[in-house]
Amino acid sequence: MLPQWIIEKKRDGLPLSEQEIRDFIDRYTDGSIPDYQMAAMAMAIYFQGMTPDETTILTDAMMRSGDLVDTSGLGLPTVDKHSTGGIGDKVSLILAPLVACGGVAVPMLSGRGLGITGGTLDKLESIPGYRTDLSTAEFLAVLETTGCSITGQTAHIAPADKKLYALRDVTGTVPSIPLISASIMSKKLAEGADNLVLDVKWGSGAFMKTVDDAQRLAHTMVAIGSRMHRGMTAIITDMNQPLGRTAGNRLEILETVEALQGGGPDDLREVTLTLSAAMLLLAGVETDAAVARQRLIRHLESGEAFEKFGEMVALHGGDRTVLEHPGRLPAAPVMRPVEAATDGFIRKMDADAVGRICLLLGAGRSAVTDRIDPRVGVSGLLKIGEPVTKGQPLMQLHAADADALEQALTLARKAVEIGDQPIAPPPLIVETISPESAQKHD
Amino acid sequence: MLPQWIIEKKRDGLPLSEQEIRDFIDRYTDGSIPDYQMAAMAMAIYFQGMTPDETTILTDAMMRSGDLVDTSGLGLPTVDKHSTGGIGDKVSLILAPLVACGGVAVPMLSGRGLGITGGTLDKLESIPGYRTDLSTAEFLAVLETTGCSITGQTAHIAPADKKLYALRDVTGTVPSIPLISASIMSKKLAEGADNLVLDVKWGSGAFMKTVDDAQRLAHTMVAIGSRMHRGMTAIITDMNQPLGRTAGNRLEILETVEALQGGGPDDLREVTLTLSAAMLLLAGVETDAAVARQRLIRHLESGEAFEKFGEMVALHGGDRTVLEHPGRLPAAPVMRPVEAATDGFIRKMDADAVGRICLLLGAGRSAVTDRIDPRVGVSGLLKIGEPVTKGQPLMQLHAADADALEQALTLARKAVEIGDQPIAPPPLIVETISPESAQKHD
Repeated sequence: MLPQWIIEKKRDGLPLSEQEIRDFIDRYTDGSIPDYQMAAMAMAIYFQGMTPDETTILTDAMMRSGDLVDTSGLGLPTVDKHSTGGIGDKVSLILAPLVACGGVAVPMLSGRGLGITGGTLDKLESIPGYRTDLSTAEFLAVLETTGCSITGQTAHIAPADKKLYALRDVTGTVPSIPLISASIMSKKLAEGADNLVLDVKWGSGAFMKTVDDAQRLAHTMVAIGSRMHRGMTAIITDMNQPLGRTAGNRLEILETVEALQGGGPDDLREVTLTLSAAMLLLAGVETDAAVARQRLIRHLESGEAFEKFGEMVALHGGDRTVLEHPGRLPAAPVMRPVEAATDGFIRKMDADAVGRICLLLGAGRSAVTDRIDPRVGVSGLLKIGEPVTKGQPLMQLHAADADALEQALTLARKAVEIGDQPIAPPPLIVETISPESAQKHD
Repeated sequence: MLPQWIIEKKRDGLPLSEQEIRDFIDRYTDGSIPDYQMAAMAMAIYFQGMTPDETTILTDAMMRSGDLVDTSGLGLPTVDKHSTGGIGDKVSLILAPLVACGGVAVPMLSGRGLGITGGTLDKLESIPGYRTDLSTAEFLAVLETTGCSITGQTAHIAPADKKLYALRDVTGTVPSIPLISASIMSKKLAEGADNLVLDVKWGSGAFMKTVDDAQRLAHTMVAIGSRMHRGMTAIITDMNQPLGRTAGNRLEILETVEALQGGGPDDLREVTLTLSAAMLLLAGVETDAAVARQRLIRHLESGEAFEKFGEMVALHGGDRTVLEHPGRLPAAPVMRPVEAATDGFIRKMDADAVGRICLLLGAGRSAVTDRIDPRVGVSGLLKIGEPVTKGQPLMQLHAADADALEQALTLARKAVEIGDQPIAPPPLIVETISPESAQKHD
């Protein structure tokens, strides 16, 4: 069958057969279907959507375009977490060692930041020596030793997704629920975890701008994972304001260390505990969410989770002494607070705007080839609903030079709104979606 | 502006600015926008359409991507005809010399056949020596001498369309009214005629399968031409059965010669006269359609039109003696009639099926690189409504060998339906569309 006939079928709203989807992906991966045919197909999918069956087959085909990690030799239940990305989201760094303390293996292949969204690998690389390019054998060895490993995907994981992801970025075909779902799930399922918890964020700093879109994406991904026999839970969380009080790579490592020692901001702790508890339930080591939560709190307060993080960092070649002495991580040379212009209550602390500030300061990438400055970012971010008095810092800017600081200051003033009435923060945890609840939305 | 932002705008149903369309086409032509971005854009246009303004700008940008022929030096009114393509459509070959007899120049850049649709250039190349690759200077010289010239587009005419046309073919983005309109009109307007008559065909053998689609296409193209200050008329004609009684290159030349001498099948003559009269009116040399028609009939019956065709053939390097002695054109080695299985009336003589028979016999191309056999095709095609007796030939098959003949015979039996009741043929000329009537449909 000619590729254009398959494109035409999708264009005309007809469902594609398993054979058609697998052929298309296989031939795209080996280069015999060129980018221009995949671009037309992606745009047709954008407009016509895909059925749950089609999306699952697409995911499976993309997953099978490369290597599949086999974690069965670990002899432990395996569970991973994936976040759709946000500002100040350092949850993976806390959660992976924390859940591993619960006797569960957490094999985590993570990504880099692009645009306003930070990347877990970039944050880890603030730690001198930390390697994010483990081979599959090294990855499995770290997992075996310490129960968690966070590394980058090798080129052999879901290569079809790598090609398609880059293509979608330049062809206006990013915001398609089936394509987003297949992209995320093909990578996550290739890394071999039996269970997966999804943190689907909604809001100004998230990819999904409405709760409704976040729910659709969550339902689609949970359905795919279930059809592929994985334990699945999705949790919809708020990303209208940054998570925690820091954004920027070194600054987020400092906050991670606090949280791993039982401290850190409430919202970060709450999202981490909620996701981690869901992971323990899915992995079958706990059956009650409240009990799981208490256990996780003990792992934080006992220092076990922090110790586990240190082990993982060391096994990745990182300098774990900086975790005990975070002052050794090089700080940004220029720093200044953004001061409140008036008394009142924080009404808005725009996540998108904070992301743009970090991008401008050099903490993120506009293009995949950009280099990141680990030192820069923002700290001391106030949260929606917190009271403020005139002149009080709303956040601290950490910059590489005075010029960048000045530009960031202008943006920062627009990122925050202060109202004169008390205001309740938006719900942090919006909804938990199980395969049963997802099915109703198929 | 990044190309993907322009794609996203179109994807989201927003109209593109003149600057955005021109940039996109200019950068696609010079290669700085790759095929995959144009493929995504074409699919977005397929789904979201284009406004009349956008389509006109797209046409103008594609037209200006290459050379523009300047016919102003001829000192004559200029008018061309374009057909959207069909089976047995040899009208251009008769019409160009016929209208030139009326004191009007007919500069005609024509195409080759692809799929079931025959190509004017392929038919002309049945005449030994006929060159279809004139330079612009040669083209203008032939026009100056004899008032008409039919040649192929040079690579310098609308190169953006050449690239886009090939890309659409393999990306499922062919059937889009704005893209079809811009493709046809950019080429036709580049050849420098002040006036253009469009033969927009509908039916099983046409690109437009319904009258409604043909009307939409006609209205769009007439509106584009008017906005670009050309005299425009579109005529919607039937293509549910082949035009004339022959299909295949040499066979169509024989029928052309008959028609140029005042004979030939009624339907071919009627379509030719209707389009030709519209051309004389547009060019301003006649003001009354009935008078124009009488004048054209005189040019046929006096032998002037046939003489003009001979002149044009000779000026293109062709052997005009074969027009006087058509038996010199090599015939197909194998020939046989397809006989009626029963008495009755022709209810169906499916144009699409006849096109497929010609393709199978070697008269057309499945791929642009295929070679055409000028000898093969079908002749003696009966017309819908004609009475038939059992055993009477419904058509004659002309094949290169017995194998092809056998396969064609199977198809041919399915192409024809005989009913037992008299039936009226479908209306040949459906509607004439002027800029005024097109505007109402904007």
